[in-house]
Parts: sequence; C-alpha cells; structure tokens
Amino acid sequence: MSRPQPLSGFPELLPRQRIVEQQVVDHLRRAFELHGFANLQTRAVEPMDQLLRKGETSKEVYVLSRLQSDGDEGDVGLGLHFDLTVPFARYVLENAGKLNFPFRRYQIQPVWRGERPQQGRFREFWQADIDIVDVGELPAHYEVELPLVINDALSGLPIPKVRMHVNNRKLSQGFYRGVGIGDTEEALRIIDKLDKIGHDATAKLLVERVDATPEQAEACLRLAAISAEDTSFVNEIRALGVIDPLLEEGLNELAAVVGAAAKEAPGFVVADMKIARGLDYYTGTVYEVFIEGQEHLGSVCSGGRYDTLASDGKHTYPGVGLSIGVSRLLVPLLNSGALTADREVPTCVLVALANEDERSAANGLAQRLRKRGIPTQVSPTAAKFGKQIKFADKRGIPFVLFTNDEGTQMKDIRSGDQATVDVDAWNPPAEDLNPRIIAE
Amino acid sequence: MSRPQPLSGFPELLPRQRIVEQQVVDHLRRAFELHGFANLQTRAVEPMDQLLRKGETSKEVYVLSRLQSDGDEGDVGLGLHFDLTVPFARYVLENAGKLNFPFRRYQIQPVWRGERPQQGRFREFWQADIDIVDVGELPAHYEVELPLVINDALSGLPIPKVRMHVNNRKLSQGFYRGVGIGDTEEALRIIDKLDKIGHDATAKLLVERVDATPEQAEACLRLAAISAEDTSFVNEIRALGVIDPLLEEGLNELAAVVGAAAKEAPGFVVADMKIARGLDYYTGTVYEVFIEGQEHLGSVCSGGRYDTLASDGKHTYPGVGLSIGVSRLLVPLLNSGALTADREVPTCVLVALANEDERSAANGLAQRLRKRGIPTQVSPTAAKFGKQIKFADKRGIPFVLFTNDEGTQMKDIRSGDQATVDVDAWNPPAEDLNPRIIAE
Repeated sequence: MSRPQPLSGFPELLPRQRIVEQQVVDHLRRAFELHGFANLQTRAVEPMDQLLRKGETSKEVYVLSRLQSDGDEGDVGLGLHFDLTVPFARYVLENAGKLNFPFRRYQIQPVWRGERPQQGRFREFWQADIDIVDVGELPAHYEVELPLVINDALSGLPIPKVRMHVNNRKLSQGFYRGVGIGDTEEALRIIDKLDKIGHDATAKLLVERVDATPEQAEACLRLAAISAEDTSFVNEIRALGVIDPLLEEGLNELAAVVGAAAKEAPGFVVADMKIARGLDYYTGTVYEVFIEGQEHLGSVCSGGRYDTLASDGKHTYPGVGLSIGVSRLLVPLLNSGALTADREVPTCVLVALANEDERSAANGLAQRLRKRGIPTQVSPTAAKFGKQIKFADKRGIPFVLFTNDEGTQMKDIRSGDQATVDVDAWNPPAEDLNPRIIAE
Repeated sequence: MSRPQPLSGFPELLPRQRIVEQQVVDHLRRAFELHGFANLQTRAVEPMDQLLRKGETSKEVYVLSRLQSDGDEGDVGLGLHFDLTVPFARYVLENAGKLNFPFRRYQIQPVWRGERPQQGRFREFWQADIDIVDVGELPAHYEVELPLVINDALSGLPIPKVRMHVNNRKLSQGFYRGVGIGDTEEALRIIDKLDKIGHDATAKLLVERVDATPEQAEACLRLAAISAEDTSFVNEIRALGVIDPLLEEGLNELAAVVGAAAKEAPGFVVADMKIARGLDYYTGTVYEVFIEGQEHLGSVCSGGRYDTLASDGKHTYPGVGLSIGVSRLLVPLLNSGALTADREVPTCVLVALANEDERSAANGLAQRLRKRGIPTQVSPTAAKFGKQIKFADKRGIPFVLFTNDEGTQMKDIRSGDQATVDVDAWNPPAEDLNPRIIAE
C-alpha cells in the first residue's frame, strides 16, 4: 500500500511526544488520586437518545453501524460520546445502588466530535474530568475544593501560566433579577458573548432580547466588568446597590471559593463576573481556566456546579465538575516543539554486544538491571561499538553497558565518562532513570 | 430518565474493580518499559479500506457516520479499529521517516468488534500489544526475546497460572512439504482445528482438502502430537524421518526460543506442534498463551512473527508481536469476584471534622499529607465521629485523622489502634499506601 496520510482532526503523536503526554497524564492522575478521586472508564458508546439530550453538541455525534448487521437490532442507535459528562451521568444512574455517595471520580479518555474538519478543530481528543456527585443535596464546600484540586493538577506541568476565572450563576442571575430583568437565563447567554462582540453590541442585545432598559443593560455590563483576585469584589458588587436574596447567596458562595483559593492557591483563581458559560446547565459556581495572555484561544479547563447531573425520578444527583482539555492544552505545544522529551524510549541503559554469541549473557545483565527498576534493552546487533553508541544516542538512551578486559563498564555517552561497575549495585542519577520533559 | 441498562458486550467496571484493572495495566506498562518499549496511542478510527484488508475480522467493523454531515466528505469511510495491529502497521508506514528502526512499541487501548451480541463476547475490549518491527530484515533473536518480555509482564499478576505454547510455521510447513503435501497453508488451517474436531476428523480433512494420503495425514498428526518444555522436541521430530530445509530452519528457530525460555523463564514456554494460528499471516514463530487447565477457553495472549507487517512498495517492515487480551483475562475474574481490591478509592487517610468551621484547617492537614504522597480526603460533613468512621470503613479507607485534646490523632480503623502523630512525619505502612488487589 502507498504511504497513508494523516486524518485531519485526529492528532497522533510521535514516540517522543507521547512520552510528554504520558508524563502529563500521569501527573494529573497522581494529583486526582492524592485527593481521593477514584478512576472510572466508561465505554466509548452511548445510546443516541442519551447523546441527543444535550442540545448544541448533539449535532456533532458520530453514529455507529455494523458493517454486517444480519438483521439483529442489538446495537442500532449507538454513537460515540462527545464528552465524559453524559457517560458519567448515565453510569451514576445505572450503578447508583452499587456506588457510595458522595462519589468522587476522575476519568481520562478520548471523546469524539464529528465536526466539519477545519484547522485546529479536533475530532478525537483527550479530556481529564473530575466530578463529585451526591444524592439529593451537594454541600457548597465542594465548589471550594475543586479549584484547589485543579491547581494541584496543573501545577508543576510544563505549560504556560494558567489562571482560573470563576463566577457564580446565582450571583449573576440574582443580580439581573434584582435590576428587574425577567429572562435571566437569556441575559446570561448574552453576557457570555461579551468578550467576542464587545460592550455596545452586548448592551444592544440585552435591550432587544430581554427587554432591558438601557440603564438595566448598563448595570449588567458594570457587573460583568468586575474582577478581583480576592474577596474585594463583594463590596464592589454591593456598591452597585442591587438587592436580591439569590445574589446574596451567590456572593457568599463565590467569596468562599475565592477566599479559600487566595489562601491555599495564591494567584490561581480570579473572580470574574463576565464568566457565564451560557450554553451549559450550571446552577452555582462556574469555572474557566485560560492560558494567561491567551484568553482568546478559549479555555483549557472548564466546568461548574449543576443541581441535576442525573435523575431517575426518585433521586436527583447534584454535582460539581471540571474538565481539562488534555489534547487542547498539549497538542499545540508538542507540534510547535515547545515541549519535547530527552528520549524517545523509556530505556536508560543499552547493553552493547561484542558478538552475537554474547546475547544470552547480555540478556542476563539486562535482566539484573530491570529487576532493580532500570529500563534496559540489549543492542539489536553486534555491530561496531561506535555504531551501537550511535544507536543509543539517536534515541536519547544515556548509558551504554559493555564488557572489556577490565570488567563490566558503564559509559555515560553524553559526557563520555566511563567506569567499571557492579551491575547489581549501579544506579543512574535519579533524573536519568526515566525520560525527562524539555520545555523550550 | 429511567434507570439505564447495561449494553451487552460493553463491559464496565465498578470503582473497586477498576482499581484492580488499573494496577494490572500499570504492571504491564512497567514491564514493557523496563524492556525499552515506547508507548504509542493511535486514533480509534481507520479508513475502511485499511480495515477491510484483513479478511475474517472485517465483517465485524463498526462503521462511523456523522449525524449531520452537511455534504462534506471528510470522514466518509471511517470505522473503529478491531485490533491494534492494523493501526500500528498504518502508523509505521505513515511515520516511517520519523521513526528509528528497529522500533519497539507497546500499545494499550480498547478495540471494537461489531459482533452479534452473545454471552461472553465483547464488542469493546482492551488489548495490550507489544511489537518489534524493522526495515527489510528482522533478526530471529526478537522471536526469542518477546516471550521473555511477556513472561515478565504476566508474572506477578494475580491471575491463574498461564503457559505459552509455541510453534514455528516454517517447521510445520517444511514438515508438510517434506512428507509430500502441496498446499501446506491449507494443511496448517486444518491442523488448527485439531483441538476442536479431534484426530479422525482432522485426518479426514487432510485427505479431502489437501489430497494427503492416509499415511501423510497420519505423519502430520504425529507431528502435531509432539510437545515439550525443552528442546527435546528437536530429536523427536527428527526421529519422524522427514527431510526439508524449511523444516530444519524452523527447528533451529524454535529450539532457540524454547531453549532461552527454559533457561530464563523456566516453566513458562512449551513447544507445541499443534499451534498453527491458521487464519493469520505469520511466517515464523507463533505463540498462544493459555490459562493452565482452561485451554478450551482460548488464548489470553497470542501473536507471532510476520515478514510483512506493512509495505509501501519501496520498503518492507517485518515484525514480531504479541497481544494480551486484558479484558478477556480480567473481566471474568472481576465479575466472579475472584479478584477485588481492599478499597474502592485511592484514599489512605480520611481527615475527620469536629465541626464545619474546621474544614479549612482540615484541608491544610490533608494537603500536608498529600505533599508527601499520601492520598487524603476530608470528611464530607462534620457528622458524629462514628458516622465518619463508617464513611471510611465503607470505602476501605484504612486511616482516620482527627484532633482531640491530646493533639492530632491517627486511628487505624481496622485494628482500632490510635496514636498522637506528627502530620509531617507520619507514614502508613508501605502496603497500606495504595489499594491492594485481593485474589480469592
């Protein structure tokens, strides 16, 4: 067959890039587990009726059919999931009797969106989600906790500085109601466009679509302009003179989130009254994480509190969750070369061969290193020593083990340093044991 | 919505089961990386023409379509991969210029088969594959190496005893040719059925389909009856008096595999002349791993050497690979309860709360434990202490941290032991840090 071409929207990584992605995902997993989140993996497919419940995104579903369905209807109406929330909600309902609530889970899986192929749009991409869900009631302290988990997860990653912008739907909707606007949900959806269409067009839409007076529209926009790294926003909003019990509730909840974050994760969270997430079903805190200075690229992590993740008629499951766009965050950095790894293999030591008859003995040496956790492989051929060094160098393998008259020698091929070693005692410097990420 | 029902053929795990699967997959990954295999992840979809090249399995492809394709043809003709070999072959061709050969990779991903739903058949399941591929030529020593890697990967897993049955296509086909059979490939496919249909029916098929004389058929069946844990099979086969250069090549290659394994992984590999893998395109060593005493359930890991994994006209890529059926191996053990975990969360310590005002201080304590790698979560409510203990107990969390007049106390809720601790110095026993697998 001729050389295949990449499929637009389905990014794949080279081994060296994949090492970076693996380490990033390991870091996220580690952070989530340190906070007590259990891992779940849901199947890739959901019934179409589940997938079509979530308005906008439904257009993008990939529908499955069997090539030879021989008349059975067992898998008619299945599609690939387009996020990890729909499958999680279904999983919670399906297994409610077997789960302990509050249930905290993380999930790191690909999702698929059958979008029109175009530059920068992924049709398969990885997300890393955390959610906490309860039965009946979900205390607001989880809305305080989640940003701290995400801060731990994103800290220490080789990515540009990011910041979480936080608002509270109760605050915004209470405020809009307080100034006399009827359709506060539509008002939220309009404010959501502020960054894109600007102040005047937003004011105009508020007047046209929710019957706001110019003064009411102006009040909404004054609220949207408020942002702060600490709880000072509370007084700033109170100074606008709007009174509403829902606004008050939202103010308190947002102050708790921002206050805790200012103390426990200084500089990570900013209260930002123009964050609305207009198309989603959030009912309390809403979150969006942007790369600082690149807010126009959209958020790399977002989420919020929803009073009904799922409901089976008898019970309601409220939750709060955040989703990190792993591919969205990493693929551009990997493709531009801003992120790479110092090796393209896990191998730390290459065992060189003087001749093919030594292979069994070399395997034995390699196995002794592996037993102590040192990734090792044996040279593919007993080529000239220089060629075997080159084999290691090309892949970034730092050490070559070989035997000469003086015994077993370990050579650091970067420095050229070489020493007689006891294979059962030698250890690489800790930073050389596994591949390292190199950030430009 | 009402309670959703599981989808037949799409197994999903509960959190406690998933912890087992995660640890098994981590163990496989670790073993592969210790042997220098680099990880790859390929996209879930392949062009249909790629998927349809591999005869039998093609019937089972899930075809994708976009719900709203608005006339563009960008993703017409995509299907979900049904194994990890087809995507790997395509990846090698697509990226050949950017890969270093010999290229050794592992891949742990789900695959999909749109089969008729029936008991015990999965339509989505996980595989863990390793392959070594080269350009032009692939030395036979990799056929010796791969079983040793798989032995390391499967050793130490909480699964029943398994054994790898090995044969060599050259040996069988050379032998058939040596006794005078023309269509040696068809003869292989017939011998592949021996376990299912028995000696007499196999002899009959050989006579009918490849024009074997009864004596020739009997010779083939005598060969198929030979098995050995060491290289004694070589003399046994030579004693059958068949002379053929291909047979001789196969004998030497198989002796190398079995000899090395007998030395480096005693008891794992058995030479077994009835292993044929009749439907696949192998050209040298073939492998099948069975659970001992449950050979009738089919293999849990299989593979072999192929002279052409892929070819782009200019270059040919020979390889050798093995695929572990992760779901096939684990799901029955998890569903029967033979395997479980002692926790359903990663959490090692629960920080209890005397009242809600303590939450911020409790977060601080939890964070100090996390900083030292101890998975910790804070109690969801300041309920009665007994209730908080119960919360931990239900999930299998072994330790509860709380504060009383004597200071900070760590309680092992299994033994009831309790002691004043320094939060910045306390460590759980190593075996309690992470969840443990419990095998019945």
